[in-house]
Amino acid sequence: MAMQKIITFRTDQQNGLYDITSDVVSLIKASKVRSGIASVYARGSTAAIMIQENWDQSVQNDVVTLLRRIIPPGIWEHDRQDNNGDAHLKAGLVGASETIPIIDYNPGLSTWQNIFFCEFDGPRERREVVVTIIAEK
Amino acid sequence: MAMQKIITFRTDQQNGLYDITSDVVSLIKASKVRSGIASVYARGSTAAIMIQENWDQSVQNDVVTLLRRIIPPGIWEHDRQDNNGDAHLKAGLVGASETIPIIDYNPGLSTWQNIFFCEFDGPRERREVVVTIIAEK
Amino acid sequence: MAMQKIITFRTDQQNGLYDITSDVVSLIKASKVRSGIASVYARGSTAAIMIQENWDQSVQNDVVTLLRRIIPPGIWEHDRQDNNGDAHLKAGLVGASETIPIIDYNPGLSTWQNIFFCEFDGPRERREVVVTIIAEK
Repeated sequence: MAMQKIITFRTDQQNGLYDITSDVVSLIKASKVRSGIASVYARGSTAAIMIQENWDQSVQNDVVTLLRRIIPPGIWEHDRQDNNGDAHLKAGLVGASETIPIIDYNPGLSTWQNIFFCEFDGPRERREVVVTIIAEK
Repeated sequence: MAMQKIITFRTDQQNGLYDITSDVVSLIKASKVRSGIASVYARGSTAAIMIQENWDQSVQNDVVTLLRRIIPPGIWEHDRQDNNGDAHLKAGLVGASETIPIIDYNPGLSTWQNIFFCEFDGPRERREVVVTIIAEK
Repeated sequence: MAMQKIITFRTDQQNGLYDITSDVVSLIKASKVRSGIASVYARGSTAAIMIQENWDQSVQNDVVTLLRRIIPPGIWEHDRQDNNGDAHLKAGLVGASETIPIIDYNPGLSTWQNIFFCEFDGPRERREVVVTIIAEK
């Protein structure tokens, strides 16, 4: 009965959202937990987790556009080290974790809510998301 | 002993914060959990959860003003579908979940912290927030 | 076996990030939990929790710069009461809670991820962060 799993994958864009819903749902199903929570955590200080619509690609593109607009590249103190100050700021603002309820053995997402890994400093050969399932008791 | 509950309510504004603290506190009390966490989750990809001051309406109004300022309506790729691209972006940036500690049978909020549901695409006849209580062990 | 603890400390800046990683790690170690989560919560509606890089001070400075840029002081309705409307907005946008996985008795942070308390209305004599450890089962 797997209750914690590290999901790994590669990213092919510098900035982009990657849908990890099916991986999280698989783990919830495998856990056989009826009621509880699934904690989803992005390892890496230039990445984040966002619950967002997945009808098509448009909202995902808009997220990248918005973050570039409010956090432009090239103007940060940290750029003198890695030239990725904007990536860290985007990650910090969106946040590394989201917690999703488990209701009757299923994720408590609404119809249009999916779970996305946000890449802000890609492409990367290996990214990691930790999913931890906690039963109500 | 209720440990998970879906709170439902209607919203009457297009953008607005709704205080759901008393509902969450009721569930914490009913759970008889001494120490643990309460996970609060907004179902719906145009809504979010924010911990914020509730002295009066001013901060709630300021949240709406700020988000309109940094995420203006009408300029997003998603607007071609639903004309609510800004609502999705606001929801993604604020975030769908917050986790509140339970300390000695009570919510671990500070004096001025309340729990708000953020509506970004209202009014809606029915909105849902899932509260899940997890005991320390 | 401590499973919940209130970390207290003072802050000496009006806006600044304070690294609380070692306190959280100590509690995780003391809990002897092999697999689970650590919920980290900032008490106070002008403060927040952010997972961020800690290579040096630069990203922390950039976070303060960014938030001042998108949430300038002195223009909010709430300023008529406390003159700290910007502090509440920063706190709401960053968020009061983050949840970190516990993997094999250790925090599931990546190499460069640390846990920061964000002060937005300091200096303060006493700030409080609640850490709650939840075992997988």
